[in-house]
Amino acid sequence: MTNKTWQEIAEAKRGAILAAIPQEWRIENPPIAQQVDVTGSFLHQFLTNKEIEITNTTADDIVKHTVAGRWSAEEVTRAFCHTAALGHQLTNCLHEIFFDAAIADAKSLDEYYATHKRPIGPLHGLPISLKDQFHVKDVETSMGYVGWIGTFEGMTGTGKEKVFESEMVRELRQCGAILYCKTSVPHTLMTGETVNNIIGLTTNPKNRNLVSGGSSGGEGALIGIRGSPVGFGTDIGGSVRIPAAFNGLYGIRPSSGRMPYEGAANSMDGQNSVLSVVGPLATSASSLRLVMKAILEQKPWLHDPLVHELPWRYEQEKQILELTGGIGDASKVGPLCFGVYMFDGVVKPLPPVRRAIDIVVKAMKALGHRVIEWQPLSHDLIQEQGMKTWVYDAGLDVKTAHGLVGEPFAKQVGFFEKLDKKDEFTASQVAETNVKLRRLRKEYMEYWNSTEELTGTGRPVDAIITPLAPFPAARPGTYNWYAYSTWVNFMDYTSVVLPVTNADKSIDKVDEGYTPIGDRDKEVYESYDPEIFDGAHVSLQLVGRRLQEEKMLAIAEYVGKAIGK
Amino acid sequence: MTNKTWQEIAEAKRGAILAAIPQEWRIENPPIAQQVDVTGSFLHQFLTNKEIEITNTTADDIVKHTVAGRWSAEEVTRAFCHTAALGHQLTNCLHEIFFDAAIADAKSLDEYYATHKRPIGPLHGLPISLKDQFHVKDVETSMGYVGWIGTFEGMTGTGKEKVFESEMVRELRQCGAILYCKTSVPHTLMTGETVNNIIGLTTNPKNRNLVSGGSSGGEGALIGIRGSPVGFGTDIGGSVRIPAAFNGLYGIRPSSGRMPYEGAANSMDGQNSVLSVVGPLATSASSLRLVMKAILEQKPWLHDPLVHELPWRYEQEKQILELTGGIGDASKVGPLCFGVYMFDGVVKPLPPVRRAIDIVVKAMKALGHRVIEWQPLSHDLIQEQGMKTWVYDAGLDVKTAHGLVGEPFAKQVGFFEKLDKKDEFTASQVAETNVKLRRLRKEYMEYWNSTEELTGTGRPVDAIITPLAPFPAARPGTYNWYAYSTWVNFMDYTSVVLPVTNADKSIDKVDEGYTPIGDRDKEVYESYDPEIFDGAHVSLQLVGRRLQEEKMLAIAEYVGKAIGK
Repeated sequence: MTNKTWQEIAEAKRGAILAAIPQEWRIENPPIAQQVDVTGSFLHQFLTNKEIEITNTTADDIVKHTVAGRWSAEEVTRAFCHTAALGHQLTNCLHEIFFDAAIADAKSLDEYYATHKRPIGPLHGLPISLKDQFHVKDVETSMGYVGWIGTFEGMTGTGKEKVFESEMVRELRQCGAILYCKTSVPHTLMTGETVNNIIGLTTNPKNRNLVSGGSSGGEGALIGIRGSPVGFGTDIGGSVRIPAAFNGLYGIRPSSGRMPYEGAANSMDGQNSVLSVVGPLATSASSLRLVMKAILEQKPWLHDPLVHELPWRYEQEKQILELTGGIGDASKVGPLCFGVYMFDGVVKPLPPVRRAIDIVVKAMKALGHRVIEWQPLSHDLIQEQGMKTWVYDAGLDVKTAHGLVGEPFAKQVGFFEKLDKKDEFTASQVAETNVKLRRLRKEYMEYWNSTEELTGTGRPVDAIITPLAPFPAARPGTYNWYAYSTWVNFMDYTSVVLPVTNADKSIDKVDEGYTPIGDRDKEVYESYDPEIFDGAHVSLQLVGRRLQEEKMLAIAEYVGKAIGK
Repeated sequence: MTNKTWQEIAEAKRGAILAAIPQEWRIENPPIAQQVDVTGSFLHQFLTNKEIEITNTTADDIVKHTVAGRWSAEEVTRAFCHTAALGHQLTNCLHEIFFDAAIADAKSLDEYYATHKRPIGPLHGLPISLKDQFHVKDVETSMGYVGWIGTFEGMTGTGKEKVFESEMVRELRQCGAILYCKTSVPHTLMTGETVNNIIGLTTNPKNRNLVSGGSSGGEGALIGIRGSPVGFGTDIGGSVRIPAAFNGLYGIRPSSGRMPYEGAANSMDGQNSVLSVVGPLATSASSLRLVMKAILEQKPWLHDPLVHELPWRYEQEKQILELTGGIGDASKVGPLCFGVYMFDGVVKPLPPVRRAIDIVVKAMKALGHRVIEWQPLSHDLIQEQGMKTWVYDAGLDVKTAHGLVGEPFAKQVGFFEKLDKKDEFTASQVAETNVKLRRLRKEYMEYWNSTEELTGTGRPVDAIITPLAPFPAARPGTYNWYAYSTWVNFMDYTSVVLPVTNADKSIDKVDEGYTPIGDRDKEVYESYDPEIFDGAHVSLQLVGRRLQEEKMLAIAEYVGKAIGK
């Protein structure tokens, strides 16, 4: 394909990303030790008051302004482009920058609005960032692979290079969204830290000692620093929720079949035992609802064979609003019941995470809701079967991608290198895993059904309050335990991450005298340093049953308000 | 497991099935040559007028009687048990007979009704037959394997033997249905003829020169002879629709995720590229609707991890009723548009099947509906990828089942024997097939979308009128071309079979001078003999998009009425 080394190709790409940032938006990136937190006042020194106002507005409020014609699409777009440019220079969160196209699109929208006196769609003038799996016209998709640069998913001569657009992209444009950048991912997509041979490591803007999460880690960092109001990631083991949690955002992992994945690049495409799903991250639950509703209005089931015909179900949402007194008559108000799953028996969550659980539980109890202990079958059994799906092909797909230019695996995904070709699963072994996973799903759903006897609400548990990870965010190279997020994928449940608090060295002390129960637990325990983690976002997830997106967003919004988020 | 030979075990089982038939219901089975058609007047000589009245009533009408208390559950059950006993003696359609339990259940229902003055559920007192994949308490499931006799799916000591019930069975009981027999299947389930080493071949009651279809062939024969008003089969390549078509019945292949398969036995369980689905067969479209609605009212998505939360959607149904003038104001009446797909380019449908297409097309045109030619991508491409899913495991699953007692494969499923272990697919090959199938689904759906430009209705084509098989029914051992049914499974579409006419030797002449275009076409062409096929049911399928069960049943019912079925 080329005579250049992977290092040369990567360096050129890295330079091209930076070169796409206008001169007037360039800044010096201070050393991490000097500036750990690059959000808020540090960031604002580079922005105008209007830019700060715009970028501190949630997506659902932004469209209220653009749809009413109070804010132009162009000024909104420019504000986010500027902030995204700063965010990238501070955290390495972007793979693709196409601000010029975005501003041109914004101008067109403004002209449309001036002519027709109405918005073009429900997301009129809303900038939306995209994980670098979505194909956008005139823009490359590297997905973190040096070998994909200049190709279409590693192939040349397909005619699709920089022309083809993913279904989600088409639908977002139909809604009036502005696309302006694509965000960083770890090569392979299969880790909770965002690192690759092109842009290096994406750090956490709130605490650059920590990672931004992954695999939608660029989204997490970018939205975390307010360089985007809302973006779309994908999640096969936590990849939307981890960056949402680490960056103090809301993020949803819908069940499979809800949001269109059609025409997006992926790792191990065709592994269909546990499907990767598309989900948004944003600064509010209502922003997630806004974009999911907008996409569903486009009837994605007519264009993506994996999407079910499930329009937005107001009834599901309404039930929660009624129960929580948000709408309707007072007679329908009744408690919700939460299950609390604090500890999976393998890795104990660190002090800030445990405190976050306490905050949410106390808030819910104070509002009259019920909370019971969640005692499902062992998540180890789920983990054992589910993780097989990650290595069905013994790493063939990701090794092939690395092999295109001979680039090395980052440590975080080094486990793929150790897989031997002879360990590839056979069709019978794949089928056996599918059967075992289905049986576990059946067992889990019957446990969930059985909680109807315990809740006192006449319903099974409405949502599970549980950690998304054992730490507020991981220190680089230490993300060693995924079971708090992966079980949700293996069961195909709906999960919404919500921000709860921030790590506080004055409260979240080391568990002195704690004896770790195993190697993983020891590593996590020893990674905790109150000084290092101070200020980091601490988030949790609320897990609901399969295909309960409307209900879970309503609950997450309610809980978020109750705890002041 | 046993010292007996497979022949001895099979013979004992065959005898046990017959022995479960009360002495007073035993008859002499006339030779086929002497009595080709065993339905109607031949059958009625063994039945009382009341039994004939009951068994000639559709399921939806039966429950009107039972729910109103006009017919007792017991008299209805006895009538169907008697007729089923006759049907088995004439066509070999049963694997399990449990009339005593059924009559006891019916008495309980009658007592309930007498006490409470109301039915127990929407299927109160309705006998429902089940393909021998569903587990019923106190009853065996052999699924046509001699080696499964006395086991639970080939295993012993599971504690589930004759105790465990499939989810569908639990839900049917909750609805008040009466279970009384399980129907024959071909061993492996992977053929359109029902043959196994236990009961032999299940013949077609309307024309015993022909097969009853498969793999739900026992259902087809049993309902065809009115030994059951409605039954549940499964369909991975046509297995509900083939027996429905061959026996002049209505049958639906819902899209995957609609009806609960949980806890039913299956072949190659865990192959999840193209899922086998559960669907009913009955003597009317409204009977299919009745049982599907009843099951959905049980919320199967809370008990089967593969079922989507899609309650019965009256809106879908209503749209068709409005368009066809069935309900609502006249201003909404508007034409439907049908696509006609007559010939797949490989095997030309026989004269009676082509005539059936003409009948339906003319009837629809006469009613003012539109009909366009259906010109999708080549079905060969679909067939090529889809058929791979049948041999992912190189026959390991079915060979293992045969190996339990060393029983031989019937000719109809002999292709499994020729598969070599080394041809088992790898996980990567499975994934590649999944990707190719997804791309074909995408291409097909976009073709379907594009027909909006051609229909003149403002909608894409509402339904495709197409053969279910190239013949009215197959002669034994000749079912050689499945592509007319399998593409529906490979695309995961909704398809309803409806009866159209009967083969008529005075009209459906041999295509004299026809030059077959290939081996398969030649075999089918040469298998046609107007004398042999005379009187056979001729059916078609109406294919709709994915998850369009409500719409397609409404269309099928409308079309059926229009052609007098």
